Amino acid sequence: MTVRFGLLGAGRIGKVHAKAVSGNADAVLVAVADAFPAAAEAIAGQYGCEVRTIEAIEAAGDIDAVVICTPTDTHADLIERFSRAGKAIFCEKPIDLDVGRVRACMKVVEETNGKLMVGFNRRFDPHFMAVRKAIDEGRIGEVEMVTITSRDPGAPPVDYIKRSGGIFRDMTIHDFDMARFLLGEEIASVFATAAVLVDPEIGKAGDYDSVSVILQTKSGRQAVISNSRRATYGYDQRIEVHGSKGMVSAENQRPVSIEVANGEGYTRPPLHDFFMTRYTEAYANEIAAFIAAIEKGATISPSGADGLAALALADAAVKSVEEKRQIPVA
Amino acid sequence: MTVRFGLLGAGRIGKVHAKAVSGNADAVLVAVADAFPAAAEAIAGQYGCEVRTIEAIEAAGDIDAVVICTPTDTHADLIERFSRAGKAIFCEKPIDLDVGRVRACMKVVEETNGKLMVGFNRRFDPHFMAVRKAIDEGRIGEVEMVTITSRDPGAPPVDYIKRSGGIFRDMTIHDFDMARFLLGEEIASVFATAAVLVDPEIGKAGDYDSVSVILQTKSGRQAVISNSRRATYGYDQRIEVHGSKGMVSAENQRPVSIEVANGEGYTRPPLHDFFMTRYTEAYANEIAAFIAAIEKGATISPSGADGLAALALADAAVKSVEEKRQIPVA
Amino acid sequence: MTVRFGLLGAGRIGKVHAKAVSGNADAVLVAVADAFPAAAEAIAGQYGCEVRTIEAIEAAGDIDAVVICTPTDTHADLIERFSRAGKAIFCEKPIDLDVGRVRACMKVVEETNGKLMVGFNRRFDPHFMAVRKAIDEGRIGEVEMVTITSRDPGAPPVDYIKRSGGIFRDMTIHDFDMARFLLGEEIASVFATAAVLVDPEIGKAGDYDSVSVILQTKSGRQAVISNSRRATYGYDQRIEVHGSKGMVSAENQRPVSIEVANGEGYTRPPLHDFFMTRYTEAYANEIAAFIAAIEKGATISPSGADGLAALALADAAVKSVEEKRQIPVA
Amino acid sequence: MTVRFGLLGAGRIGKVHAKAVSGNADAVLVAVADAFPAAAEAIAGQYGCEVRTIEAIEAAGDIDAVVICTPTDTHADLIERFSRAGKAIFCEKPIDLDVGRVRACMKVVEETNGKLMVGFNRRFDPHFMAVRKAIDEGRIGEVEMVTITSRDPGAPPVDYIKRSGGIFRDMTIHDFDMARFLLGEEIASVFATAAVLVDPEIGKAGDYDSVSVILQTKSGRQAVISNSRRATYGYDQRIEVHGSKGMVSAENQRPVSIEVANGEGYTRPPLHDFFMTRYTEAYANEIAAFIAAIEKGATISPSGADGLAALALADAAVKSVEEKRQIPVA
Repeated sequence: MTVRFGLLGAGRIGKVHAKAVSGNADAVLVAVADAFPAAAEAIAGQYGCEVRTIEAIEAAGDIDAVVICTPTDTHADLIERFSRAGKAIFCEKPIDLDVGRVRACMKVVEETNGKLMVGFNRRFDPHFMAVRKAIDEGRIGEVEMVTITSRDPGAPPVDYIKRSGGIFRDMTIHDFDMARFLLGEEIASVFATAAVLVDPEIGKAGDYDSVSVILQTKSGRQAVISNSRRATYGYDQRIEVHGSKGMVSAENQRPVSIEVANGEGYTRPPLHDFFMTRYTEAYANEIAAFIAAIEKGATISPSGADGLAALALADAAVKSVEEKRQIPVA
Repeated sequence: MTVRFGLLGAGRIGKVHAKAVSGNADAVLVAVADAFPAAAEAIAGQYGCEVRTIEAIEAAGDIDAVVICTPTDTHADLIERFSRAGKAIFCEKPIDLDVGRVRACMKVVEETNGKLMVGFNRRFDPHFMAVRKAIDEGRIGEVEMVTITSRDPGAPPVDYIKRSGGIFRDMTIHDFDMARFLLGEEIASVFATAAVLVDPEIGKAGDYDSVSVILQTKSGRQAVISNSRRATYGYDQRIEVHGSKGMVSAENQRPVSIEVANGEGYTRPPLHDFFMTRYTEAYANEIAAFIAAIEKGATISPSGADGLAALALADAAVKSVEEKRQIPVA
Repeated sequence: MTVRFGLLGAGRIGKVHAKAVSGNADAVLVAVADAFPAAAEAIAGQYGCEVRTIEAIEAAGDIDAVVICTPTDTHADLIERFSRAGKAIFCEKPIDLDVGRVRACMKVVEETNGKLMVGFNRRFDPHFMAVRKAIDEGRIGEVEMVTITSRDPGAPPVDYIKRSGGIFRDMTIHDFDMARFLLGEEIASVFATAAVLVDPEIGKAGDYDSVSVILQTKSGRQAVISNSRRATYGYDQRIEVHGSKGMVSAENQRPVSIEVANGEGYTRPPLHDFFMTRYTEAYANEIAAFIAAIEKGATISPSGADGLAALALADAAVKSVEEKRQIPVA
Repeated sequence: MTVRFGLLGAGRIGKVHAKAVSGNADAVLVAVADAFPAAAEAIAGQYGCEVRTIEAIEAAGDIDAVVICTPTDTHADLIERFSRAGKAIFCEKPIDLDVGRVRACMKVVEETNGKLMVGFNRRFDPHFMAVRKAIDEGRIGEVEMVTITSRDPGAPPVDYIKRSGGIFRDMTIHDFDMARFLLGEEIASVFATAAVLVDPEIGKAGDYDSVSVILQTKSGRQAVISNSRRATYGYDQRIEVHGSKGMVSAENQRPVSIEVANGEGYTRPPLHDFFMTRYTEAYANEIAAFIAAIEKGATISPSGADGLAALALADAAVKSVEEKRQIPVA
């Protein structure tokens, strides 16, 4: 069976998913929609699909699933519409910046028996998957301490930041999900600190650019997250899980892994420049998992509930910074 | 412009090239031929191309280029036929196991104004390309000593070995080409030692499984090659170039790069299992370079002359083992 | 000039310092005292020094300096006595578990014009010193985020834990000092979480074995500390400092750095087994710095004030765990 | 028991051994002799020993063992004299540059029941010892291919080179010994290439600065050696042993192992600057092994026979370069 896709949104992340869908032998990209016709046409030209309106994709008989890559504030509405239209839905994170709106949206998905997958791509990175597999196989015993380092090469434009919901909901949310993926137990409390060290404009926009977070589960397992909007050496993405019998870690990836030695020392090139190149395989695996779940009628993961849980942690982090205390989460 | 391909040979390496051609936006795989219809049909089914005879591909008006992946003893004949038919030719190494036959074949290519690229895939590996780039940029000064380690995870079947021309012409030939690629000067002499340490059956078939080679250029630059048909830890592929101002090296690649630590120590997973997975990017880049050369009418590299030069080094290595002395090469 | 030493306390850490003093060309170990004569005699036999009482060392005309390695609850008294006796004092951390007692002791040191160095050995590790040097040279720009991972191979006996002042004052105190050493700005607040994951007996003794800490400076710089009383792979001691222009890190050290590769992967041996072997060079450098400061009449660092500052951070961490909030520090 | 030492020769390597002897709890350095009184006095001052003549050390009743660090052309005579005087002898390599002279000297040692250890320090490096231990424990199965990379940071003065016996007898000799140490089987043939790539003055002095060697045992095991008199990145000392069940390797060592990351990439500092710092532990272990053998009356290793075997390989390498062929060794 081939799953027939419509792509909603032809921007930066839309292109990533267009490539992943087109490269999958079990999928075909049928149509793309975007408010900017030129963006949609660029993808249509490259992958040989049609440009349609969102309404046309909604009504189409030749489309089984959609990938939602439109601006965040449209996600929840689109999920509801396409769930009602009976399409399987892959939606980029977050579903919405408001927990109440997410809950309402999930209710519609449930009532319409919808299939919804949320785009936490890192769960599908082969290295992070191997970390999780090592845990599942008992190679490190009981998980005790998780360390997540996540630094962007540079800050996004301040305009983007203003609409982003803030660093915790925009950037740390991936690390919240990764912590949940690795801790093996639900998180009970959040403590966060935050500062503006990279760019004062980010502070003027009401956001932070450098944050540290401690998450704790009921039994006392801890996860530490370190985020910065700046890393001169590339896109820094590391995880380490320490357990009762050992430790497992995934180091950074490089596009080219040579080493040059001279009187200055031994130098390896910088890391990948950003997520589009770092997570190429993850995006391909993610869409493959979505397709496999559709074909087998299997439970979809990560689900809307996973999206909601990560958002709740982000909300708690914001509150923790404001109130300078540990915030319990349900 | 899209280059239209015919694939000759649907075996293990044929599949690798079918994938590389199909994944290239500037190419289309039109037809595949193989003596075993089932093999051809498998590729046709997977990539949506036709099964044709070699003769039909030769005569086809809708095919611009062919990839020759048939058994070695057919390469030279096919190159001549398709060069006469006006198709651009990508041929897996070697052109032939006999230097005289290679020369005769190259004469035909020249007379028919043919375009011939020989499949030394490692030149297109992104890591080895970066090594060469570092040299070209002068980062290590003048090249002095090249070290190439190349070990297969396991030996091929003895039947294959009997037809292979021996380890120097079958396996080391890639390292001879890599040495030429990196030394920056033609090789003037070859010294080789060889032994049977892995499997006595290989010795009974008249071949070796463990060899060491020293190549020297006229000015005294040296390359050392270490080969084994066995490596329990995966497909071992390393190069190091030492120069007057520094050193550059490319380490092995892994499909998954996690590390597990416990009382036994720190363990990273084995290397790639073999060339199909290790050199995925190299095969894609190689076909892309072939296509680019066709489209731009540029000189093709590595050429038939490169194939011939590597074969001459292999012949010299065989002679060196037999005569226990350094063999000069033209 | 040769500095003549008396050693107070001949236990585990006393032996470490006896070796460091004896190996220093500018020092001589004259006498050792311990409540257990056998322990003192062992050191006297090995290094060719005398066994004396503490009182005799206090009164001795042939001793310029003492190294205090007795139990923690004697440190402050001994510092006061030997400061009054005009000896230069190197004291193992902590001066006392009570901030008030430390302040009183430091007052005596000040009044007697004493020379006091506190044993934060990690500041003298060559790798960590190189990290600090890279920061001082401006190689990473302004410090933004410090990450300290510090895990003991195994927990000490519960009896020790009961007298230790708890994990923050006994173990994390080294990391608090290292954070101060690296942040380049005084710490303004402490947040800590703590749990018992390793051994329930530790919990019964009123202590924790797994803790995470976030420190923040006034300008917003952050340090994250991850501690565990268990690490199956050896004594885990890493630091990483992220700045506006780059990052500098010091990896773990191994006594033997070979690698064995086979079908299971690539395995390096475990880390050093504990501080005595991991910090051999640090202990030697530390005593050398103490001697150099005595000889040059230079300011001693780390000083009693550094010991006090680290203890105040430990106290704040305890309070943070109890009150589940960020604790400001003066 | 304490072994009482005399040191013959107070130059660069003499200082290294003075430190090793003085740092050993079972040894005492009693006297030092050197043709340059100032050199001897420097060591005497630093380690608190006497300056004596060679004759006085020979006749001394308070000296059990000597360390010979004088110029190479005096080694054989001194070994004979001190063997007759009943002293245990540690002699820096080589015993002599002439195989016949070495044999004659060893005969005297044998006749006088002498104890002679030859200074192949690398056998005592903890990392290389661990490589050998891994082999002995069967972790890599049967040894098949050994790779030794050995590059000096810079060439010695041409005056030294003229007296050195040439690169094979001066520098490669250590690698010949290491190959013997690791191959587990005697070497049957030598092939060597050599060139002048670093400094034409070395060529004018009749020597080479860049050499590659292949050694082969009777059963076909191979060792490859790569030498250069130049390495801009420090003292390059690596070994790798490939066997039927796996591989074991020892990487280079660094005095400081930090890493700085920025837009240029990830940089680690250069290697140790030369053997005095790289092999500090090896020199200490070597003297400790010599002392232990004396105390236990055990067989001394590496012995004069090991020195002779390495020299014979060096002679064969010289001949191989001259005759461009593989040279059999007895």
